[in-house]
Amino acid sequence: MTAQQLDSNGRLRHLLTLEGMPRPVLEDLLEKAQACHDSAIGRAQDGRQALAGTAVCTLFFEPSTRTRSSFTLAAQRLGADVMSFDASTSSAKKGETDTDTLRNLEAMGVRGFVIRHPDDGAVARLAGVVQPGTCLLNAGDGRSGHPTQGLLDMLTIRQAKGADFSALKVMIVGDVKHSRVARTDLHALRALGAGEIRVCGPANLLPGADDPVLAGCTVGDDFDAMLDGVDVLMMLRLQHERMSEGLVPSLEAYHARWGLTAERLRRAASGAIVMHPGPINRGVEVTDEVADGSQSWILRQVANGVAVRMAALQALLG
Amino acid sequence: MTAQQLDSNGRLRHLLTLEGMPRPVLEDLLEKAQACHDSAIGRAQDGRQALAGTAVCTLFFEPSTRTRSSFTLAAQRLGADVMSFDASTSSAKKGETDTDTLRNLEAMGVRGFVIRHPDDGAVARLAGVVQPGTCLLNAGDGRSGHPTQGLLDMLTIRQAKGADFSALKVMIVGDVKHSRVARTDLHALRALGAGEIRVCGPANLLPGADDPVLAGCTVGDDFDAMLDGVDVLMMLRLQHERMSEGLVPSLEAYHARWGLTAERLRRAASGAIVMHPGPINRGVEVTDEVADGSQSWILRQVANGVAVRMAALQALLG
Amino acid sequence: MTAQQLDSNGRLRHLLTLEGMPRPVLEDLLEKAQACHDSAIGRAQDGRQALAGTAVCTLFFEPSTRTRSSFTLAAQRLGADVMSFDASTSSAKKGETDTDTLRNLEAMGVRGFVIRHPDDGAVARLAGVVQPGTCLLNAGDGRSGHPTQGLLDMLTIRQAKGADFSALKVMIVGDVKHSRVARTDLHALRALGAGEIRVCGPANLLPGADDPVLAGCTVGDDFDAMLDGVDVLMMLRLQHERMSEGLVPSLEAYHARWGLTAERLRRAASGAIVMHPGPINRGVEVTDEVADGSQSWILRQVANGVAVRMAALQALLG
Repeated sequence: MTAQQLDSNGRLRHLLTLEGMPRPVLEDLLEKAQACHDSAIGRAQDGRQALAGTAVCTLFFEPSTRTRSSFTLAAQRLGADVMSFDASTSSAKKGETDTDTLRNLEAMGVRGFVIRHPDDGAVARLAGVVQPGTCLLNAGDGRSGHPTQGLLDMLTIRQAKGADFSALKVMIVGDVKHSRVARTDLHALRALGAGEIRVCGPANLLPGADDPVLAGCTVGDDFDAMLDGVDVLMMLRLQHERMSEGLVPSLEAYHARWGLTAERLRRAASGAIVMHPGPINRGVEVTDEVADGSQSWILRQVANGVAVRMAALQALLG
Repeated sequence: MTAQQLDSNGRLRHLLTLEGMPRPVLEDLLEKAQACHDSAIGRAQDGRQALAGTAVCTLFFEPSTRTRSSFTLAAQRLGADVMSFDASTSSAKKGETDTDTLRNLEAMGVRGFVIRHPDDGAVARLAGVVQPGTCLLNAGDGRSGHPTQGLLDMLTIRQAKGADFSALKVMIVGDVKHSRVARTDLHALRALGAGEIRVCGPANLLPGADDPVLAGCTVGDDFDAMLDGVDVLMMLRLQHERMSEGLVPSLEAYHARWGLTAERLRRAASGAIVMHPGPINRGVEVTDEVADGSQSWILRQVANGVAVRMAALQALLG
Repeated sequence: MTAQQLDSNGRLRHLLTLEGMPRPVLEDLLEKAQACHDSAIGRAQDGRQALAGTAVCTLFFEPSTRTRSSFTLAAQRLGADVMSFDASTSSAKKGETDTDTLRNLEAMGVRGFVIRHPDDGAVARLAGVVQPGTCLLNAGDGRSGHPTQGLLDMLTIRQAKGADFSALKVMIVGDVKHSRVARTDLHALRALGAGEIRVCGPANLLPGADDPVLAGCTVGDDFDAMLDGVDVLMMLRLQHERMSEGLVPSLEAYHARWGLTAERLRRAASGAIVMHPGPINRGVEVTDEVADGSQSWILRQVANGVAVRMAALQALLG
C-alpha cells in the first residue's frame, strides 16, 4: 500500500488504494460505512454537523458525473461545504500543472479533495505535495485505483452474504484488463479472504497470466463453464471504445458469450447476487430481466456508495 | 390529469402537469405560493428548516439555466441540499437510459427531482418508476408540460387582477404551437375560469383548429384587431430556430405584426398587464418601452417563479 | 472612482474598482480582510451566520474557474447560499442582454452578484440598473478592473512588509498592457503611497508612455537593470495568445529576458518577495525554484484571496 495512506499511528490519512490495505483497516471502514448506511440514508439531520465548516472539493481531471454526485451527496449529508472544480476544462487548458491546481485550492482553505485523474497513481503522487491536515480521496485514477468502488462492492457482498467471505465463490466478468473496478475488487476480495475468485472475459480483455492482480484466481473465457456454484457475479461495464478499438466485434457478439441472462443466472449458486458498477448497457452485460430482477443488487451498490463515501470522508476529515 | 399526480387521499404526490388539475388543488398551490412570496423572498431565515437534510436534484435532460436557477434558489431557501445533474452531457452519452439515471440518483438518497426533458410526457413516465416518498417536479417536458411556469403566470395574474378570473380577458400571443408555456397557461386559465381567452399569432405557428388545447378560445392572426379590451397580454418568446426553419421570414416582419409596442398596448384595456416567460428578444416580442414600462409584470413573474417552486417543493417534500 | 461605489454616507455599496478609492476605505477593507484571514481560514464555524439566508450568485460572462472558486468558498464560509450562473454558455446564446440576465436573477432574490465580464466598465454599468440592496462585486471586467485581486495583492504586501508602503520599491513585470491585475495593482499601490513603482516588460506589452496608469512609475524593458533594491516583485502571467498574436516570439525568448530566476532574484533587495496572480506558466514567468522557494508568496496570495472576498462580501451584504 502507498506509504502516505496511513500515518505513523496506523490512522488513515488519505484514501488512495485498496492494494495492500491491512484487513483490519478495510473492515473498520466497512463497519463505519454500514453504520452510515443504517442511520443516515433517508434520515434528515443525523451527522449533519460532522463536517460543518469543512470545505470539500471534487477535483476532476477527467469527467465522471456519477461518482462526483455520490461524493457530493455524501459530503452534503455530513454538513460540509462542497465545491466542484472541473480541471479537465479549465486549469489544464491554461497550462497549469495538476499539482499547482491542487495546491491553489488547498491554499483557498479546502481540506478534503475527491480526485479523479486519468493517470495511474496520480492521486498518490498528489498526496505527496499537500500539507498535513489536507486529505485526498481517490475517486478513480488510471487503470488501477478506485478504492471507494471496491469498498462499496465489499459492503454490498457483506450485506448479502455476511462478513465471512471464506466460503464465497465470486466471479468477475468482462473487460478486466481495462477496469479499475475489477483491479480494486480483486485487491479487496483477497484482503477479505474470499474463498474462490474467478475471472472471466474475452481473452483479449483479460490481464496477462503473469499479472499479479490475478494471483490465486481461476481465469478463463468460457462464461457458461465457469458459472457453477458462483455466489457473487460482478459484471463489468463494456466501454463502447472497445468496439472502435476492434477489441470486441459487436455488442451482440459480446452479449452472446458474456452477457448475463436469466437462464445463465439460474446456473449459478442458488441465491447468487448480481452486481454492476454502472452505468449499465442493458442487453449487453446484463439483460433487463436480470438487472431488474430480485437477485440484482445493483441499486443497493449505488446506495452503498454514498454510505462508503460518508464513512471515508468522516474517517479522514472528522 | 396524470393519475400519479395525486395520491388516493387527493394529496399532491408529484407535480407533472396542470392539465386536468382540480381547481381546488391549483388554488391551494397558488395560495401557498403567495405565502412564500410574502414571507420568504428577501427575508433571511424563514422556512430554512422546512427541507433541511432533504436532497433535491435538478436532473436536466436538456439545458435550461434559468429554470434550473429558479428551482435551485427555491430549494436553497427551504434549506434543502441541492445537487445539479446535467444528463444531457453525461449519462445519455454513456448509453444509460433516463430511467436508470433517475433510479441511480434515487438510490443515492435524492428525494426530490426537478426534471427537464425534451420528450412529451417524459416526467409522468419517469414518475411511474420511483419509490414511494420520491417526488418528481416537471420543469418542462416536450411541448406540453411546464406546470410551475403555469402556476407562476397564474399567481402573477392574481396579484394584478385578483383571484376571480371570470371577468378577465386574457390574450396569448406568438408561437403557441411550439410553446409548452402557452399550453400550460391555457389549461390553467380554463381551470381557473378565465372569462375570455384569445390566442393570436402567425397562422403557421398556431395549433390546428381541432387541437383540444384551443377549446373555447378565440383564435386569430390579426393582433391589432384582437387587442380590444384585453386585460392580460401573455407574449411568448420567439425561438430563433423558427427563422432557420422558414416559419417566420424575419424578426422585423414578426415584430411588425405581432410585436407589442406602447402604441398597441394603449389599445388594450386600461390597466392591462404585460407578461413574458423570458428570455425576452427585445424589439421582437416587445419593445424596450413596453418591457421596462409600468404595465410590465415580467420581473414579477420571475420573482413569483421562486415562490411557486418553493410552494411546490414544500407541498411535495415537506 | 465610479460614483455608484460609495453611498452618500461614504459606505461601500458595490465593489467596482480600486481606481480612485479613498485610502481609508481601502485600508479598512484590508484590515477586515486580515481579520477574516486570522480567524476564518481553516476554522470551522466562525462567521458562518454572517450571510446566512443571503443568496449570492457568481454571474460569469466569461469563464474563470479559479476566481469563481475563491468567491464561492468565501461566500460559503459566511453561510450564504451560493449559486453559479454561467452566462457565457446560456443566456447570451439566447440573445438576452446582460442587463436582463442580471435583473432576472435579482428578481429571483439574489442579493449579491460576483460578476466577471469581458468588457471594460461593464460591472459599473450593470450597477446602474439594480435595486437598492443589491450589491455587485467586480470579479474582473475588461482590461481595467479586478479590485479583489488588487486587494489580495495589497494584503499580501502588508503581511510581508508592513502597512507602511512609503519605503517600498515594487516592480510589476510582464504584459502590463493587457493586464487588469497590473492596472488594479497600480491604482492600489499609489493609493497606499508606495515609495517607488517600477514597471518592466517587453516594450510592445507596456502601456503607452502617456497612459495615466503609469503616472509616477519608472518604466523600462531591461529587467536585469531594474532589479536593484526591489522589495516586491509582481510577476504577471503571460497569456498564450500573445504568441499567436505575434507579440512575443517564444516562451523561451520571453523567459530569457523577463523570467524570474533564482539568480535574478538574488539581485533584488534582500528579503524581496515574489508574487504572481496565477495560474503560473512554470519556466516562463518564474522558474520552479523561485515559485516554490522561500521568497515566494504566491500561495499566500491565493489564501488572501478568500479572506479579501469574505471581507468584501461582508462589507457589502452583512
